[in-house]
Amino acid sequence: MAGTEEKLKRLREITAEISRLNSIQALLEWDQQVNMPRGGAEDRGNQTALIAGLAFDKSTSDELGTLIADLASEVTDLDADDEYAREIKVARRNFERSARIPREKIIEFVLATSAAHEVWVKARQDNDFKSFEPHLTHIFDLRRQQAELFQPYEHPYDALLEEYEPGMKTADVRAIFEALRPRQVELLRAIAASEQVDNTFVKQYYPFDDQRKLGSFIASRFGYDWERGRLDLAPHPFTTSFGAGDVRITTRFLEKDGMSALFSMMHETGHALYDQGLSPKYRETSLDRAASYAIHESQSRLWENMVGRSREFCRFAFPVMQMLFPQHLGNITLEQFYRGINRVEPSFIRVEADEATYNMHIMLRFEIETGLLDGSLRARDLPEIWNTRMQEYLGITPPDDTNGVLQDVHWSSGLIGYFPTYALGNLISAQLWEKMLQDYPGIPDAMTAGDFSQILAWLRQNVHSLSARYDPLDLVRRITGGPIDPEPYLRYLNTKYRDIYRF
Amino acid sequence: MAGTEEKLKRLREITAEISRLNSIQALLEWDQQVNMPRGGAEDRGNQTALIAGLAFDKSTSDELGTLIADLASEVTDLDADDEYAREIKVARRNFERSARIPREKIIEFVLATSAAHEVWVKARQDNDFKSFEPHLTHIFDLRRQQAELFQPYEHPYDALLEEYEPGMKTADVRAIFEALRPRQVELLRAIAASEQVDNTFVKQYYPFDDQRKLGSFIASRFGYDWERGRLDLAPHPFTTSFGAGDVRITTRFLEKDGMSALFSMMHETGHALYDQGLSPKYRETSLDRAASYAIHESQSRLWENMVGRSREFCRFAFPVMQMLFPQHLGNITLEQFYRGINRVEPSFIRVEADEATYNMHIMLRFEIETGLLDGSLRARDLPEIWNTRMQEYLGITPPDDTNGVLQDVHWSSGLIGYFPTYALGNLISAQLWEKMLQDYPGIPDAMTAGDFSQILAWLRQNVHSLSARYDPLDLVRRITGGPIDPEPYLRYLNTKYRDIYRF
Repeated sequence: MAGTEEKLKRLREITAEISRLNSIQALLEWDQQVNMPRGGAEDRGNQTALIAGLAFDKSTSDELGTLIADLASEVTDLDADDEYAREIKVARRNFERSARIPREKIIEFVLATSAAHEVWVKARQDNDFKSFEPHLTHIFDLRRQQAELFQPYEHPYDALLEEYEPGMKTADVRAIFEALRPRQVELLRAIAASEQVDNTFVKQYYPFDDQRKLGSFIASRFGYDWERGRLDLAPHPFTTSFGAGDVRITTRFLEKDGMSALFSMMHETGHALYDQGLSPKYRETSLDRAASYAIHESQSRLWENMVGRSREFCRFAFPVMQMLFPQHLGNITLEQFYRGINRVEPSFIRVEADEATYNMHIMLRFEIETGLLDGSLRARDLPEIWNTRMQEYLGITPPDDTNGVLQDVHWSSGLIGYFPTYALGNLISAQLWEKMLQDYPGIPDAMTAGDFSQILAWLRQNVHSLSARYDPLDLVRRITGGPIDPEPYLRYLNTKYRDIYRF
Repeated sequence: MAGTEEKLKRLREITAEISRLNSIQALLEWDQQVNMPRGGAEDRGNQTALIAGLAFDKSTSDELGTLIADLASEVTDLDADDEYAREIKVARRNFERSARIPREKIIEFVLATSAAHEVWVKARQDNDFKSFEPHLTHIFDLRRQQAELFQPYEHPYDALLEEYEPGMKTADVRAIFEALRPRQVELLRAIAASEQVDNTFVKQYYPFDDQRKLGSFIASRFGYDWERGRLDLAPHPFTTSFGAGDVRITTRFLEKDGMSALFSMMHETGHALYDQGLSPKYRETSLDRAASYAIHESQSRLWENMVGRSREFCRFAFPVMQMLFPQHLGNITLEQFYRGINRVEPSFIRVEADEATYNMHIMLRFEIETGLLDGSLRARDLPEIWNTRMQEYLGITPPDDTNGVLQDVHWSSGLIGYFPTYALGNLISAQLWEKMLQDYPGIPDAMTAGDFSQILAWLRQNVHSLSARYDPLDLVRRITGGPIDPEPYLRYLNTKYRDIYRF
């Protein structure tokens, strides 16, 4: 029988191979979004399916299961604060998550989401929720069946949330959102009662080449390493990684909004800095990933919002923008610019939401997801529930389901349990930011000088270089001394918008 | 026991999977050349090795061997002119070529070429043949050992040539080259004795954006389908295919030559038109590839030379170029342009050679390769042999080995047997061209009007859509009624250069 050392070596060979297959998969998908001519679609589908199958087989093999069981039994305390125990624990968790769902259920799920996605695209075009409804019901049924394989739990949603936020429970999220919602509604009412700020100078065509130049300049300033990355165009901005040495961002430019791409590039740079900063020590092991999706989102939001939408950042960057876009910004003051890019306006579409309204969109989706999963809501009632709550939370009612319950791609893709990570990311970004400013009070001054190096250094040390060494709640506690807490985000929003909206 | 139908189905599943792995491999390599930031190199190497290993395992599996043996035994005559017999025959040939070399010999070869490549890069920089010599000897030794696994043969080189030109023998190539060489030397002497034409207008900086625009315009005119392809920049131009729906070309622009990229784009377009035109009927089967490397090269050379360097093409395209590059071409006549782009000048570097000198470079390499492989030449004598023959064939002597025997990447990469395909491609291109003009005498006139559709239609019908249905010699015989024949190429060169050089 092989010794522990030998088994660990073999485990790492297998996780390395899985990691490589995942990187290859990511390249196939990046290329599809960025480069692939239309004619390549059918073959690309087959190539992607092949790699996905190989990765699945590797991730669920009996050999891997036996290795992990053996190694786990040799570790006396898997919860010990010990790197080796952690590596085995995460490997076991990943294995169980992959291996517990039977292959035929996975195929059924892939087929169901593939069919649902096509129906959703058309339903959204035609404002026809009825046609999508049975698919939605079916997908939630399948996800509930998957969840049931991971009993016991307090709520079936726990099992789905676990995929994105290991260690977090539905009740935790619910408690956070319950504390958050009334306070955000209150803030939004105060803003609505104030004089609106002007942002017409933003809602114009800005030359794309100069937008790209500006975004690249800012990404460089933030610390994005171009020797280990690149920027390309894609219909929906995203960041992808083929290992810490090759982390790519994408963006798109809008005809009628000259600033959207800039903030999007800052957002993706935030994600990319995390992936570029993962520890080489854990390379290709079970710990070679982010702590969670919410932690990842906290990075993108911190750079996009706490940094990019700050007055200090504007002081540094606005002159550069005036130089690039004299016709748009030449006669705008710094203060007008700062207030304009921070304009708050309830809108129907989540992806266009500002900092003050974004979480409301997420909470609505969380309530629907948990309700559909535990049977307390029915799919056919969704349009009404959606519209009622939009009115309650944001004071607006969508004109149709296309701008309402049909707007997001997630459900048709089977991504249930994912939405909360967006709001949690916002909350965590403010918690990190507060702590960072306590540690380095000189950061605001440095930002006005265009120096972001302390921010990156702090994040590298406290977040990036830890890779998946800690689960998200443990990481947040380690850094801030407490749990995920909505208070810092609420403080941040209130301070900011009281100033901008003068209430 | 499974029936024939079932076995064939299984065989096709396996060849489809191999085909997909090869496409994924091609994407990893394309991305590495075109997009990858430097930091991605190490991970990319691991990803490529992983896919190569999977493809090797699939291509050499016992299951595949048994399937092919069973199916072959059920076909009464594998040489029958029957699609099904052909599919099994080619599958068997591919399998044997892959499976006969033991895995450890392949690893030894990969390690040897990897080491040799590094030494070659440095040796070429330092003009230090001595340091490369033992590696060269080792690589030829390993290739000879590989060849010996494919006995019997007349010459060990036969076994290597077979990888690129199935069915062709060293003696065939030698006979062709023996007929060709004195006639090309004679032509070159006549040209050298004539008044040289001027091409200083070519040897200038042309704006890269407009070069790209021109190349894309010409590629479109030739029939390149942009819905199934794209053009990118890469250090060394190449064409790659991930299936007939996604065939990509690359180019590069030179500071001191405004026409090099244009002809290079025409060359790669010629390759790409072949790959875009492979028959969907054979998709992902053993026949889903070109007939051979020489046939592939005949396509690129036909579009680059017979079409792109013709007076008729210039009549159509020169006004477009004058519009794009008025400063360079505004005061040049069509005749000056035509003669300038066809200037013949013996040079040390193969990749820069013109139509009249190119084959001489190839014949020199063929003589060295066969000599090293059968032991009639020794590696240490190569610099002298090289320089002597350069003088004999082209009338020039390289100033150093960097511009001589060390110039090509092929040998350090283990690509032995590949060089002849370049010259054979030239010869075949002229044979096809002669036949095509007999079939469609209106082609020259159509070219002056910028209409290349008959050319593409003829190639689609006679070459592209046949995929690997025929071996190269059979394909040439099927089209021209005879073997590979240097006469059409000699006629083409003599006619063209007598006119240009007026001898």
